[in-house]
Amino acid sequence: MKACVLYSGGKDSSLIAVILEKLGYNVELVTLNFRVFDSFKPAAESASSLGFKHRVFKADRSLAETAASIIIDDGFPNNGINYIHKEVLDLVSKSYGMVADGTRRDDRTPKLKSSEINSLEARRNVEYINLRGFGHKTINDLSKKIFEVKKEQTSMENNSDYEIEIRYLINAIKGENFAQKIFPVHVQSRVIGWKNKI
Amino acid sequence: MKACVLYSGGKDSSLIAVILEKLGYNVELVTLNFRVFDSFKPAAESASSLGFKHRVFKADRSLAETAASIIIDDGFPNNGINYIHKEVLDLVSKSYGMVADGTRRDDRTPKLKSSEINSLEARRNVEYINLRGFGHKTINDLSKKIFEVKKEQTSMENNSDYEIEIRYLINAIKGENFAQKIFPVHVQSRVIGWKNKI
Repeated sequence: MKACVLYSGGKDSSLIAVILEKLGYNVELVTLNFRVFDSFKPAAESASSLGFKHRVFKADRSLAETAASIIIDDGFPNNGINYIHKEVLDLVSKSYGMVADGTRRDDRTPKLKSSEINSLEARRNVEYINLRGFGHKTINDLSKKIFEVKKEQTSMENNSDYEIEIRYLINAIKGENFAQKIFPVHVQSRVIGWKNKI
Repeated sequence: MKACVLYSGGKDSSLIAVILEKLGYNVELVTLNFRVFDSFKPAAESASSLGFKHRVFKADRSLAETAASIIIDDGFPNNGINYIHKEVLDLVSKSYGMVADGTRRDDRTPKLKSSEINSLEARRNVEYINLRGFGHKTINDLSKKIFEVKKEQTSMENNSDYEIEIRYLINAIKGENFAQKIFPVHVQSRVIGWKNKI
């Protein structure tokens, strides 16, 4: 069975991809693009470094614009990121029978409520899977063992999270560097290959 | 790293065991016994049919007695089963650095709250893993593909869930067949081997 794994190039989405492949699914790593900025490139490189099929899934620019506007209004990213993640799950569920992401037990954003998962699965006749059974420490230890990971400061060039295109839109509306107050630069871990292929 | 998987012989606990083995853990399937009744035998057989190491972990009879008394007072099993599951996790966490069980996203009992998981992990310096990322349908489809499963009516001889020893105690206190009102006979799926080893 084909499984779509929403993919950023980070260790969480890489790990759920590996688990689903081990369970026999035909995994496609899928990175969304909202026609704002080609932020999918780092994810495509990570996917290729692990030997997975990768697909850029084009979505309406309006999804990123709405997320940007929610985030500008709120002054913090959580609701806007949750909004776009839910819309993305709904969208890809029209094309796949199984959709997964790398959200962990201790993730706060993005995070679907149980009722939202049930609604998605029933509405779209899709199965949704994530990493909710695993905590932060377990995933860090596993990814250290399995993946070659590059730690670096986030930038527009090395990250494929939703925030990159949203940040681009926010700066276009509110002026250069406004987005940095909302999405501060942080150290990220990007998967760049196998350390010990499993 | 050694990982303890609380094991009943059912498809959920078998599936999390397979996932953890695929991720490189040294998996031990662990079935609790409260010195009331040797209900671990079906789980031991299932473990052996999959080629996993199996351990019977002896615990105090008082845990099952307390669970039985909660369940008699309540007239339904949920609180008693949650009680014993939490005590068991706490107990095995003294012997293992990683403890897992087969609880799924849609399981209501047993189920740990996030705060209880955080408390367990911090208190016992343990990592806890479960199947919360997977729903009912996904697990059913996967186990149909991977495992040879036997469907049968539950009995004292073919089930290794906590309820078997608790049922024994309840009948001893309240008279033969009392437990059947609280734990009705149902159709269970017991893993009896690989269908397609992954």
